[in-house]
Amino acid sequence: MANLKGFSLPLSPEGKANLLPPPPWHYSGDFMTIEYRADPDAVIALLPDELEPADDPGAVNLIFADWQSCSENGREITEPYYSQYKEVMFYVGAKYKGKPVCRCVYIWVDKDYAMLRGLVQGFPKKLGEVWMTRPTTVGKAGMRLEPGGIFAGTLSAGGRRLVDAKVTLKEITQNGPTVSDPPLHNSRHLPGIDGTEPAIYELVTFSGTDKEIGPIWYGDAEITLFDSPFDELKALEPKEMLGSYYHSFGYTFAGGKVLEQHKV
Amino acid sequence: MANLKGFSLPLSPEGKANLLPPPPWHYSGDFMTIEYRADPDAVIALLPDELEPADDPGAVNLIFADWQSCSENGREITEPYYSQYKEVMFYVGAKYKGKPVCRCVYIWVDKDYAMLRGLVQGFPKKLGEVWMTRPTTVGKAGMRLEPGGIFAGTLSAGGRRLVDAKVTLKEITQNGPTVSDPPLHNSRHLPGIDGTEPAIYELVTFSGTDKEIGPIWYGDAEITLFDSPFDELKALEPKEMLGSYYHSFGYTFAGGKVLEQHKV
Amino acid sequence: MANLKGFSLPLSPEGKANLLPPPPWHYSGDFMTIEYRADPDAVIALLPDELEPADDPGAVNLIFADWQSCSENGREITEPYYSQYKEVMFYVGAKYKGKPVCRCVYIWVDKDYAMLRGLVQGFPKKLGEVWMTRPTTVGKAGMRLEPGGIFAGTLSAGGRRLVDAKVTLKEITQNGPTVSDPPLHNSRHLPGIDGTEPAIYELVTFSGTDKEIGPIWYGDAEITLFDSPFDELKALEPKEMLGSYYHSFGYTFAGGKVLEQHKV
Amino acid sequence: MANLKGFSLPLSPEGKANLLPPPPWHYSGDFMTIEYRADPDAVIALLPDELEPADDPGAVNLIFADWQSCSENGREITEPYYSQYKEVMFYVGAKYKGKPVCRCVYIWVDKDYAMLRGLVQGFPKKLGEVWMTRPTTVGKAGMRLEPGGIFAGTLSAGGRRLVDAKVTLKEITQNGPTVSDPPLHNSRHLPGIDGTEPAIYELVTFSGTDKEIGPIWYGDAEITLFDSPFDELKALEPKEMLGSYYHSFGYTFAGGKVLEQHKV
Repeated sequence: MANLKGFSLPLSPEGKANLLPPPPWHYSGDFMTIEYRADPDAVIALLPDELEPADDPGAVNLIFADWQSCSENGREITEPYYSQYKEVMFYVGAKYKGKPVCRCVYIWVDKDYAMLRGLVQGFPKKLGEVWMTRPTTVGKAGMRLEPGGIFAGTLSAGGRRLVDAKVTLKEITQNGPTVSDPPLHNSRHLPGIDGTEPAIYELVTFSGTDKEIGPIWYGDAEITLFDSPFDELKALEPKEMLGSYYHSFGYTFAGGKVLEQHKV
Repeated sequence: MANLKGFSLPLSPEGKANLLPPPPWHYSGDFMTIEYRADPDAVIALLPDELEPADDPGAVNLIFADWQSCSENGREITEPYYSQYKEVMFYVGAKYKGKPVCRCVYIWVDKDYAMLRGLVQGFPKKLGEVWMTRPTTVGKAGMRLEPGGIFAGTLSAGGRRLVDAKVTLKEITQNGPTVSDPPLHNSRHLPGIDGTEPAIYELVTFSGTDKEIGPIWYGDAEITLFDSPFDELKALEPKEMLGSYYHSFGYTFAGGKVLEQHKV
Repeated sequence: MANLKGFSLPLSPEGKANLLPPPPWHYSGDFMTIEYRADPDAVIALLPDELEPADDPGAVNLIFADWQSCSENGREITEPYYSQYKEVMFYVGAKYKGKPVCRCVYIWVDKDYAMLRGLVQGFPKKLGEVWMTRPTTVGKAGMRLEPGGIFAGTLSAGGRRLVDAKVTLKEITQNGPTVSDPPLHNSRHLPGIDGTEPAIYELVTFSGTDKEIGPIWYGDAEITLFDSPFDELKALEPKEMLGSYYHSFGYTFAGGKVLEQHKV
Repeated sequence: MANLKGFSLPLSPEGKANLLPPPPWHYSGDFMTIEYRADPDAVIALLPDELEPADDPGAVNLIFADWQSCSENGREITEPYYSQYKEVMFYVGAKYKGKPVCRCVYIWVDKDYAMLRGLVQGFPKKLGEVWMTRPTTVGKAGMRLEPGGIFAGTLSAGGRRLVDAKVTLKEITQNGPTVSDPPLHNSRHLPGIDGTEPAIYELVTFSGTDKEIGPIWYGDAEITLFDSPFDELKALEPKEMLGSYYHSFGYTFAGGKVLEQHKV
């Protein structure tokens, strides 16, 4: 296109209107991470044919994240609406060609640009309302990052509560969450316009660059997942809690690659 | 996929989690439509190479729509959150292989499912906050569908006002809006995961079925478009008002077809 | 005050900043009304000492309303954000000095001006997310006002579902809802700044003027009330359904009067 | 009332439904504070008769605050929706009986409980959409609390931008903002139900307890105030910037006292 500019829709003459400026996209956030075991069959049922079950096939990582993000051109700096968003993600373990991978199976965000970035990266994003305790250093209304500190997260969508989570901090640890450690293997998908086969359905991988992590707090967690006619979270209910964590995390997304086309 | 079901992401074991059930998608709504002429160069600058300028090259159709929609499986019937949304669209005229077409160049909606349906249909959707006067039949607080009735629409995104519009009704007419009459020629687009070329960028067309239109009110309109670092609406400012309309409209989307791949 | 103008806070030099312009306030809306019997003790427990139980002491009227409202100065006409709001109300019957009255015991709205108007009128308003099916006349996505038409309402607050309601229309009737027919007897209340006794706690009454009602549809209803740590709706669960209705309604609020000070 | 419990409406049998549990209310937050001089006449025009102009009569303090708050009963701890809110406040200086005081003349918050607490404390609260940069410690997407760090705030209401603000940090200072240092003198106000005289209109004062403040960053600020048919902020435009600050702040509200009734 000679005249139309932009990384995403809407393309426009000046290239300002696009919902997404091009990567790299930088992220700085706070993470509340809860690892647990669900029914292995329920986890395996979420894997595409190209992925095999993990060695710990029921392991799930539930993450609440409170993000700031920006693109390289920096237009978000003085418009925090366009840099701040919150999200809730369910990661599971799997294997690809025999090697451990992880995969995001469900995810909710609260901004449109985050939703479209998700479609680019193979995150199956929907909009939701996410709330998450923030650590504070003054006053009596905020939890400190200290033993006994309680950090809560809630997820709702369509006016229905989907997730209640709570972590009670115990101590700083050297070992963080493990389920989402292996390379991320998501699937990009866009329905075709004829309403039958998907136009895109491909297994992709990417790993961020410039990763930075703050002190990792370890703690005890509780999770309640709720039923809904629009979601299937109950199938992922915890059978056994593993570990939970609170920490800051930063990284940069600079693109990924397509591994193969999914069979339809 | 043997085990994963759904028309859109997220795919899931039961197929309830997908943001979009498959078409047909049914729509019933109220339309406030304002046709005007903008600077022809500004309109032409929004066309991809595959489309030529319309005979009336600066014609624009600004539509505020207050929708209810549902899919064939009807899960939205008792959850109006999932059926009601509002949107603002800018349509322009063009030609494709010498024949008149129309094209949606900018569009804002206020729900995630509407946003993803847009990506399927080639609408360049972003989220916005849309408000639109509704006609009433009782009390002193609502406009009647009658001469002198004032119907207003406002669009904001990211906490910034983008569009103020107002139509004052004059009379019922037999002739409705014309700019968006020819077949719709949108472009579907999804960035590639490597951050360079789009993975999908294709010219598509579709026309709804089962169209139904209520009585068409004609009126006089005013529009103000506002500047923003994230949009380019000022370039489409009215130079000359054409006609404005208020009416109900229903149709069904049952799929479209790809015409050609855009050159990148 | 010589220099500060306004009917409500914030008072300001020009009087434009006040959240509420003075009455009269005009209202035009659509009502979904469901009458039922709850546990009489639960209803009686919601009455202040100055009111006695109604003859039908467990009768409750649950109303979903989709409003447009405006003040006399009309500044809301071209800003539908400031005229449109939705609300959910629970009314119960009672007696005052031996005569039948009604009383709003719980109410949620989705705009700030509606919330403050509520405090003026003795409605115990909180913010909530309200969705409500709208009747349509075209297309396959909207319910018609006709036998078999299904009209649904949902209420959520703080990301928790509180009420699911559904009315299936049967026929037009001459007799509308009755629980909220007698004069409204609300209580205005504002805590004192010292945190002990309320500064205002008074029994008030008002009846709208210029009431107008559209055709009344009668139907069958279902209600589900949900538990929450922030509400007490479960106590009002239906024991027996009475009648349900869908109709338009308009009126004007032009002030009310104080009947007596509540004992504290 | 024997049977109805609660600090605020709605009063209820169990006392869970009230929008506000009783004080003490604890607050922990982050403050972006910008002090400047506006036209002194515009500031003086915002004072009630009982207050005299300050020695620096045009001084204004614009505060963006990102709060967590809770009541003594702690029900907000696992429901961050009920503890987190953001607000934007305009404070001005004044004198009461010859002694320096400060006064909040305009304020916007984004939650209902914060709005009602405001009415109790004499803050003239309306709802608005507030965004505010948060400091981060990892990644490339967040500003650090360090020289050159840019912290931005935006306020919108009704889909209109009202305030854009930006502070560029320079250094840690020992001296914080001064305009809002003297005792707060707000006015509580509730219209009467007859629509004529206010039922409450009283000058009140309170000072928090258990105040705690973090390191204070000093910086340079820019502010843009926007026109609106529903607000009067343009009259408070900066004529001269004073100082700007970023710091954490905690305090507890345990009640205040009425000084006198305003003349109406």
